[in-house]
Amino acid sequence: MSATVAATSDRRSPGRRRGESGTRQVIATTARTLFATHGFGAVSVRTIAAQAGVDPSLVHHFFGSKRQLFDAVTQMPLDDSEAVAGMLEAGPDGLGERVARHVIGQLRSSDTGRTLVALVRTASSDPRAAEQLRERYTRDLLEPVARGLDIDHPELRAALCCSQLLGLALTEHIVGLTPLCEAGTDTLVAIYGATLQRYLTEPLPH
Amino acid sequence: MSATVAATSDRRSPGRRRGESGTRQVIATTARTLFATHGFGAVSVRTIAAQAGVDPSLVHHFFGSKRQLFDAVTQMPLDDSEAVAGMLEAGPDGLGERVARHVIGQLRSSDTGRTLVALVRTASSDPRAAEQLRERYTRDLLEPVARGLDIDHPELRAALCCSQLLGLALTEHIVGLTPLCEAGTDTLVAIYGATLQRYLTEPLPH
Repeated sequence: MSATVAATSDRRSPGRRRGESGTRQVIATTARTLFATHGFGAVSVRTIAAQAGVDPSLVHHFFGSKRQLFDAVTQMPLDDSEAVAGMLEAGPDGLGERVARHVIGQLRSSDTGRTLVALVRTASSDPRAAEQLRERYTRDLLEPVARGLDIDHPELRAALCCSQLLGLALTEHIVGLTPLCEAGTDTLVAIYGATLQRYLTEPLPH
Repeated sequence: MSATVAATSDRRSPGRRRGESGTRQVIATTARTLFATHGFGAVSVRTIAAQAGVDPSLVHHFFGSKRQLFDAVTQMPLDDSEAVAGMLEAGPDGLGERVARHVIGQLRSSDTGRTLVALVRTASSDPRAAEQLRERYTRDLLEPVARGLDIDHPELRAALCCSQLLGLALTEHIVGLTPLCEAGTDTLVAIYGATLQRYLTEPLPH
């Protein structure tokens, strides 16, 4: 508790010098990076606090439990509904590539990418993270895209796209396949875009 | 130690009644299932022993440490070199589908599938499991297939195939996407086979 008290009573303490929102931000960024690198189960509040240079009590003060901290840093302010509308507006041609660019762009951006990789890592041992992935990728993004095409089996098509996109997240960021890590974003968007286009628009086998 | 002693000195104890190889087999099968369901980090030797109906000391007696147990149950006696030769023998036509049938068949078989899912789960928090996946899927299976075609960029092509196949393992078995879980094996083989065929044989973007 002493650090919390110090932080709220002594404006010269390290936590206060950054300001409340600065400290909160440093903890959030540190936690996101550690969760992305090691997964939820392997990271302790103590480790996050040490890396962020604050007392563990400050982590609890700002975020509550480790689970609440994880939930807070994996909530992304992404307006997927607007992105989906934009992708569909231009018609079915090139839709797979637009979806690929959107998701691969997120995966390779710093904060959002770390959040998504943290979710994929954590889904392996935590059903709630698996549910967050289902909601984010199928319910909020890929199913609305498939439904916008007015085509058969939108849920299977969305799941097929999800299997390729999360497979890229897994093999590039967790399994660490060198040729994927080294490939340029435009190359991956072209290759995976063509795959998503097939999954979204071509006839499925009976 | 008492259970180990009992097991080696008293032929009427439960462990001995199954016979040494029977007990070893029960521990291995139980461990494989638990690692596949929860991942390496979330499963203790105590839990494995309780579920297998043996004393924890027997687990250590047969397998050593938890890590050694994990390694033992995720070593698969798969002769991939023979499978690869068989896939290539019939020529490039339909190669993607043969690879898809081989891997999806393994993923959906009981023991091998559990082993592969355990590796995917564990790779999220354990670099050695990630390395086992790289060796099994790219070095031993997909790179030899791509090299057998005598085509450009065999390593990138193998990595692309790996990203789709491990993506299916992740989304069907860990994220739990219902449309994939409910799809028949022949349907998935046809859909993913066409994707792998593209990754293996079609021109790549510059």
